[in-house]
Amino acid sequence: MHTATLLCSCTDRTGIVAALTTFVAEYGGNIIDLDQHTDNDSHHFFMRLVWDMSSSALSREDIPGAVALVAKKFVDMRWNLSFGTPKPRVAIMASTAPHCLADLLLRHQMGELNGEMAMVIANHDDLRELSEHFRVPFHSIPITKDNKAEAEAEQLRLLEENDIDLVVLARYMQILSPAFVSAWEGKIINIHHSFLPAFVGARPYHQAKARGVKIIGATAHYVTAELDQGPIIVQDVTDVSHRDEVEDLIRKGRDIERQVLGTAVRLHLERRVLVSGNRTIVF
Amino acid sequence: MHTATLLCSCTDRTGIVAALTTFVAEYGGNIIDLDQHTDNDSHHFFMRLVWDMSSSALSREDIPGAVALVAKKFVDMRWNLSFGTPKPRVAIMASTAPHCLADLLLRHQMGELNGEMAMVIANHDDLRELSEHFRVPFHSIPITKDNKAEAEAEQLRLLEENDIDLVVLARYMQILSPAFVSAWEGKIINIHHSFLPAFVGARPYHQAKARGVKIIGATAHYVTAELDQGPIIVQDVTDVSHRDEVEDLIRKGRDIERQVLGTAVRLHLERRVLVSGNRTIVF
Amino acid sequence: MHTATLLCSCTDRTGIVAALTTFVAEYGGNIIDLDQHTDNDSHHFFMRLVWDMSSSALSREDIPGAVALVAKKFVDMRWNLSFGTPKPRVAIMASTAPHCLADLLLRHQMGELNGEMAMVIANHDDLRELSEHFRVPFHSIPITKDNKAEAEAEQLRLLEENDIDLVVLARYMQILSPAFVSAWEGKIINIHHSFLPAFVGARPYHQAKARGVKIIGATAHYVTAELDQGPIIVQDVTDVSHRDEVEDLIRKGRDIERQVLGTAVRLHLERRVLVSGNRTIVF
Amino acid sequence: MHTATLLCSCTDRTGIVAALTTFVAEYGGNIIDLDQHTDNDSHHFFMRLVWDMSSSALSREDIPGAVALVAKKFVDMRWNLSFGTPKPRVAIMASTAPHCLADLLLRHQMGELNGEMAMVIANHDDLRELSEHFRVPFHSIPITKDNKAEAEAEQLRLLEENDIDLVVLARYMQILSPAFVSAWEGKIINIHHSFLPAFVGARPYHQAKARGVKIIGATAHYVTAELDQGPIIVQDVTDVSHRDEVEDLIRKGRDIERQVLGTAVRLHLERRVLVSGNRTIVF
Repeated sequence: MHTATLLCSCTDRTGIVAALTTFVAEYGGNIIDLDQHTDNDSHHFFMRLVWDMSSSALSREDIPGAVALVAKKFVDMRWNLSFGTPKPRVAIMASTAPHCLADLLLRHQMGELNGEMAMVIANHDDLRELSEHFRVPFHSIPITKDNKAEAEAEQLRLLEENDIDLVVLARYMQILSPAFVSAWEGKIINIHHSFLPAFVGARPYHQAKARGVKIIGATAHYVTAELDQGPIIVQDVTDVSHRDEVEDLIRKGRDIERQVLGTAVRLHLERRVLVSGNRTIVF
Repeated sequence: MHTATLLCSCTDRTGIVAALTTFVAEYGGNIIDLDQHTDNDSHHFFMRLVWDMSSSALSREDIPGAVALVAKKFVDMRWNLSFGTPKPRVAIMASTAPHCLADLLLRHQMGELNGEMAMVIANHDDLRELSEHFRVPFHSIPITKDNKAEAEAEQLRLLEENDIDLVVLARYMQILSPAFVSAWEGKIINIHHSFLPAFVGARPYHQAKARGVKIIGATAHYVTAELDQGPIIVQDVTDVSHRDEVEDLIRKGRDIERQVLGTAVRLHLERRVLVSGNRTIVF
Repeated sequence: MHTATLLCSCTDRTGIVAALTTFVAEYGGNIIDLDQHTDNDSHHFFMRLVWDMSSSALSREDIPGAVALVAKKFVDMRWNLSFGTPKPRVAIMASTAPHCLADLLLRHQMGELNGEMAMVIANHDDLRELSEHFRVPFHSIPITKDNKAEAEAEQLRLLEENDIDLVVLARYMQILSPAFVSAWEGKIINIHHSFLPAFVGARPYHQAKARGVKIIGATAHYVTAELDQGPIIVQDVTDVSHRDEVEDLIRKGRDIERQVLGTAVRLHLERRVLVSGNRTIVF
Repeated sequence: MHTATLLCSCTDRTGIVAALTTFVAEYGGNIIDLDQHTDNDSHHFFMRLVWDMSSSALSREDIPGAVALVAKKFVDMRWNLSFGTPKPRVAIMASTAPHCLADLLLRHQMGELNGEMAMVIANHDDLRELSEHFRVPFHSIPITKDNKAEAEAEQLRLLEENDIDLVVLARYMQILSPAFVSAWEGKIINIHHSFLPAFVGARPYHQAKARGVKIIGATAHYVTAELDQGPIIVQDVTDVSHRDEVEDLIRKGRDIERQVLGTAVRLHLERRVLVSGNRTIVF
């Protein structure tokens, strides 16, 4: 099936849904999925619209122009149009922990992720064999105190040369520079552990153990300048008890991390995530 | 805010969303919530559309006729229109267990349920004081082997006289006759416990204990002729272990039952549930 | 069945379990439940031991002295012994929100809580009728800026006169003084909402909505001098999405709050909670 | 740390815990973990006892005999003793689906599973590369209508020759013969999907979709003669809705399957599972 997916948002007013769905219907498109949300506080409108183009009178080349005409009526409308193909190209950045990387590659192999796994970039060589098992090119770029800028330049060059659309930090244990983050805003997904209450400082699992928390979790979010504070895409938790040693917390954390990251990447690649300020609308 | 809520379904074809949303926009209505679903297998279309009528050029009296005109274009469209007021009137049927009844009445008191708790009908007198504490009229209609038909006739008379829209079976331990069920099809919500695997026969919690299940659950569903087999509205489960005695399973079951039933009643009253054959679409 | 429940903790060493279980066996007691935990980091030992005294050669009066003799062998052992009766006496403190209070009283009515609901103390009169419906004495002690000390003195007097063993803060919207907290250390259970990430300041549900969190939760804990930072007994969460308005978050929060608080009170009354520093061991 | 783990069960009577813990203490063992359960209905006692042998006066060779002496006092006691080494040897049987196999091998690589992944036996060749990536010998034994008996004989020969302790069916799509099951009773773990209600017959995910269930799950259990009816070790579920197509149900099913199977295998290898009739005690 040939489909078009439109994500759009603007200040709410009468007639937005009618205008866009009428446009689709007029040209013979059949709506497969429509999800909309109006934020009561900000009076902002969000919509995800998917339609079947099999009988469409408009070719793929003509649709963007036609959408632009409709969008113009709603002054501040931001929109993004995509088709099933070509699939978004994904780069996974990792360090040494295999669980998130293996999980993403396995999900891709099983057809769960609507993207191309274009390459893995790591600052260690440990995960080369894993990547290669899944036929994904592996680039090892070691990072030291002294070469950080050069290493990042090399990473950015690789991303650009390979037409990457999305960067997934799969337990990548280096902090990206503000310039990197800024250049790829809204296109980097990170996973980090989450606790109730939150713990500041090193060794959070040890703190969680000492504090006797009964739940641990993970949060997948877009990366912004403020570390670990970007728009949240997916969160989940699991129960823990005094019986769980620190290593058990870490094991349970891994399970939640890969589940949450895998889900966030899937939702992003299906174009189900709209960012609004510091939060997301996930359709 | 004055709102109108339209639930509709029909065979899928091009232009349904456009036709209905254009109708709303033309008369100055502003869409607050739109949720649609197309079933891939049956090619059936489902939609829930809520709009603000504050600036509507159509009065409440004129809307049904106008919707009917649009609906006619889509041959087999079934639709249901409702406004915030008057609120649906609810009758709760119960026996002796207070947990589901107390939960529903408390949720209503806190403003969670968009309906009027019109009365409680019970086959025992145990729950009279509880109902009266929440200012809900209580009708006790004892049921014996010999008076079952008369008792049900009395129940049906009460439901009719009080303009009841929804009947909630809150651990009502009598089986309704096929005639009752048929007369109130799609308007009776029941709650029952659920197990993996399912247990046939008496004392399911004892069977669950003997079988060593690790999960127990509850299912809220519309009542149909086939006992406990009607369209499912809400399900949930909770973990159990060998440490849980039968009484613990029953206690945990109660918690799930009231949570699941309360949610199902809320969703129904907000007109978020569409029935299609033996399943539901819950928007 | 007459049972004895022993909670104890001490520095771990060889032979603790053997000494205590041999003591029970020697006097004809039969162990019904034994749960122990050794903390790897602090090398501290914790145990909960329940035995049937039906055939015990020791009377209830003689047991404490006999336990003391065994405990002496393990220098720093702290222990607490209780029997099924008399049941712990519980005072619930509340303000205006009924959900946690109603939930606790209903659970007690259904036999889930192994204590006496001795009284409700509130700083408003709203919940009087609810308490009285469940036959629990209700004391209204209004609190203003000027009478805070007197009001608290009156509260403390009531707790003492009524031989209260446990104070449950069921959405009690006043902060207890350090003196109150100190006098009742380890005997006050509070419930508060929890978020990932945590929000500082007023109106946390509005902050959670603005931040777009995908999970909200609640934490039941013992009250200590540091507000909301005492040993955690129970935590749970529920999923939320952009569709949930602030009022939906609050509604979902209520469901989690009462579930978590009810569970924490049940566990405490069954003497399943041991406090160790700022965390709990929940057997 | 050198540890010994004792699993035992017998008819409940006074003094069992005392006898066994005294035995451990007498020989200088320090109890690390003790978990016991008495089944109220069957009056059966179950215990898992782990102790540190670092300072034990008994050598590993002498312990079984010493335990046997204690056990004799409790007529019908069944017991099983194990030490950290050698680790149990695991054979994984699979067909073509990689998700459960990959998950188990990854968990093993990360140190979560206390066993040796000795080999993979599959009736197709698809998973060879995956197994070999994780350095686990792969045996492909094709099965047809005609060679079923020979194939099974070959499988049994491999299991025996390789001193296998546990067989894990990781989406192995063949039914084992009664003789196979009987020979390996209590030593084969299977994973299968679970639904509320249960569905009989082919294509359960399609049935679940048609029935509109709101939850799907998975159950890990020991294999017995009665298909899919053996003692349950772990169960879990996940939410689904009308938005989930059959392929989404299958995807969500995979996530639950591998989580549940991975947990069950871990618990078995840590000797935390006792079978009693058709149910388990999981410590």
